[in-house]
Amino acid sequence: FKSKLPNSAISIFSRMSLLAQQQQAINLSQGFPDFDIDPKLISLVTHYMQKGFNQYAPMQGTIELRKVIADKYKQYYNLHVDQNEEITITAGGTEGLYSTIAALIHPGDEVITFEPAYDSYSPSVQSFGGKVVPIELLASDFAIDWNVVRSKITDRTKLIIINNPNNPTGRILSQQDILALEKIVEETGIYVLSDEVYEHLVFDGKKHISVLESDILRQKSFVVASFGKVLHATGWKLGYVVTNPMLTAEFRKIHQFNVFSVNTPIQFAIADYLSDISYYDSLAPLFQQKRDYLIEGIKSTPLQILPCEGTYFLLVDYSNITHSEELAYAEKLTQEKKVATIPISAFYTSGLNQNLLRICFAKKEETIRKALQNLQQM
Amino acid sequence: FKSKLPNSAISIFSRMSLLAQQQQAINLSQGFPDFDIDPKLISLVTHYMQKGFNQYAPMQGTIELRKVIADKYKQYYNLHVDQNEEITITAGGTEGLYSTIAALIHPGDEVITFEPAYDSYSPSVQSFGGKVVPIELLASDFAIDWNVVRSKITDRTKLIIINNPNNPTGRILSQQDILALEKIVEETGIYVLSDEVYEHLVFDGKKHISVLESDILRQKSFVVASFGKVLHATGWKLGYVVTNPMLTAEFRKIHQFNVFSVNTPIQFAIADYLSDISYYDSLAPLFQQKRDYLIEGIKSTPLQILPCEGTYFLLVDYSNITHSEELAYAEKLTQEKKVATIPISAFYTSGLNQNLLRICFAKKEETIRKALQNLQQM
Ligand SMILES: CSCCC(=O)C(=O)O
Ligand SMILES: CSCCC(=O)C(=O)O
Repeated sequence: FKSKLPNSAISIFSRMSLLAQQQQAINLSQGFPDFDIDPKLISLVTHYMQKGFNQYAPMQGTIELRKVIADKYKQYYNLHVDQNEEITITAGGTEGLYSTIAALIHPGDEVITFEPAYDSYSPSVQSFGGKVVPIELLASDFAIDWNVVRSKITDRTKLIIINNPNNPTGRILSQQDILALEKIVEETGIYVLSDEVYEHLVFDGKKHISVLESDILRQKSFVVASFGKVLHATGWKLGYVVTNPMLTAEFRKIHQFNVFSVNTPIQFAIADYLSDISYYDSLAPLFQQKRDYLIEGIKSTPLQILPCEGTYFLLVDYSNITHSEELAYAEKLTQEKKVATIPISAFYTSGLNQNLLRICFAKKEETIRKALQNLQQM
Repeated sequence: FKSKLPNSAISIFSRMSLLAQQQQAINLSQGFPDFDIDPKLISLVTHYMQKGFNQYAPMQGTIELRKVIADKYKQYYNLHVDQNEEITITAGGTEGLYSTIAALIHPGDEVITFEPAYDSYSPSVQSFGGKVVPIELLASDFAIDWNVVRSKITDRTKLIIINNPNNPTGRILSQQDILALEKIVEETGIYVLSDEVYEHLVFDGKKHISVLESDILRQKSFVVASFGKVLHATGWKLGYVVTNPMLTAEFRKIHQFNVFSVNTPIQFAIADYLSDISYYDSLAPLFQQKRDYLIEGIKSTPLQILPCEGTYFLLVDYSNITHSEELAYAEKLTQEKKVATIPISAFYTSGLNQNLLRICFAKKEETIRKALQNLQQM
């Protein structure tokens, strides 16, 4: 058998979640909330199932859901996004990423990624015969060195994948970063896949900048977003992709043959629920509080905290304790301290070891407290 | 922009459903039921949402759901299918098809399809640089001429895609067909993708034969199945893929990066619901009655009926009335008789015109009656 992905194994998230379960450890590895979703949202899903909205949705998603997405871009970014020609509902952010890569990447195309990089980018590109060109973020602060980016561009470079806010680093891109990217795109015509699933989870009054806010980038960019991250329901598997009408047409050609369409009653329910557009305002404060609670507790451990501007995740450095390899140390912590985390080495092609772990704080205060109690015994 | 699918347009199903809506016509085009699903199933989904099962399911699907699938194969096929290593839950049958093709097809690989063929097979293969080699089913009875199949095999032939029971022809494969396929697979090592989403909708006491029932085919086959077709909920988008452990491992490599996982509360609900394994027995009688009701009514029209052994679909021949091109005639019927159907030419690479339309009978008796009233005025 000629494997399409000879080097891929089960993802680090599945692996650590499984270990957490086996070890009855507190699972701060895979990124998902452990608190309840709004009962109102559940009632809405039930309502639409009962009303008989159980057959295929339109391939591009329901107009009702696309409309509330367009409203969001109007309200929060002051952008006009066309609900008919620029938005497609996907089977989670992951399908949005995969179908974008499917629409763009031909064999031999090169794709620039920034490491630490979310684990799906590279195998997705590989599955279409593309070649990933990973660039390491600066060790000091995980910033992008745009001169290095320029030096890696060839005439085969088809796509640059960014993730902003960034999983796992918790960093966001600055206006200068967006301008640097814009310049490159303007000069080269390279496409951009911008994974913005954590767009609403940005802290300390900072602001997420979407690539859609740049007219130049908008001609060349696909933005991937997630309802799982917005509604605390990662298991519902709904997201969307925003791009211009020409690229949307190409994206939908793949999407319609990849999954055809996405769960109907949930689309209707989310559209109703998010018609209260102020809902998004609750997200950053909620998660900032969780981040701060975690940070406060980590201060009583030997772990060192790295800055976190957004996402579900905090990075900690354990080099004060040991220089063990990250995966081994994450496994050890799961077994001995009953706290599961994610080794950052899993986000590097090279497996680079920096003595860093990723801790998910999208959890009830009680969960974080228990984990801290265990970690404080290190 | 170098399109991955330069020749793909919006699918015929989306197109005809949209036209039906615009024309306020009875929609017998796209294959989906218009009757209510069981309220008990809705209550189960609500129950699991309320119990907090709203985060990522395991990548391969919940063990509970995989177990009821294994039970089904035991009960209805007397087969042992391993719930851990041979079953993966997918985002509908469509994702099962696409991820299988993704796992198998490298640029230059040839894939044999039988036309009329479901519209997703060819673009899916194309999106991975594969080449589709379409073989037309015999005009007389839509049977497969296995000598023609042999004559089309080259050393680049990687995969044969079958659809049994067949959409749109409504035919099923015989034991001889399975033996002929088995012989080819044994001699050549070619893989088989068997789309069996209508497995339970086989009429007149006939029996669906799964490729899994052949030990030889099982070494080389991926079976795609659908819960939408079983639960009358095509908009929920859950299905699964069954294959042997080695191929399951390769399939999951793609699946985990394509969609990662599938809706959690619905997986739990379906597992509960289908623990009553006798449920499947209700399906063939239910749809057979609908087929017969449609056939009886069609007899009072100038349309000629083709044999239908299974699926949601009946083919009718309108050559008694006109020899117009099928798409034009389907559009005319939608506009003038307010009944939307699917032109069979859409299932042929060549656009072959045979004066055939596909009528979906997965509808309330009332819906079929109204459509018949209109068609009887032809
Ligand atoms: C799709 S499983 C991974 C969830 C996630 O985004 C993460 O943990 O990084
Ligand atoms: C995925 S839309 C098409 C539904 C269907 O299977 C059909 O109408 O043939």
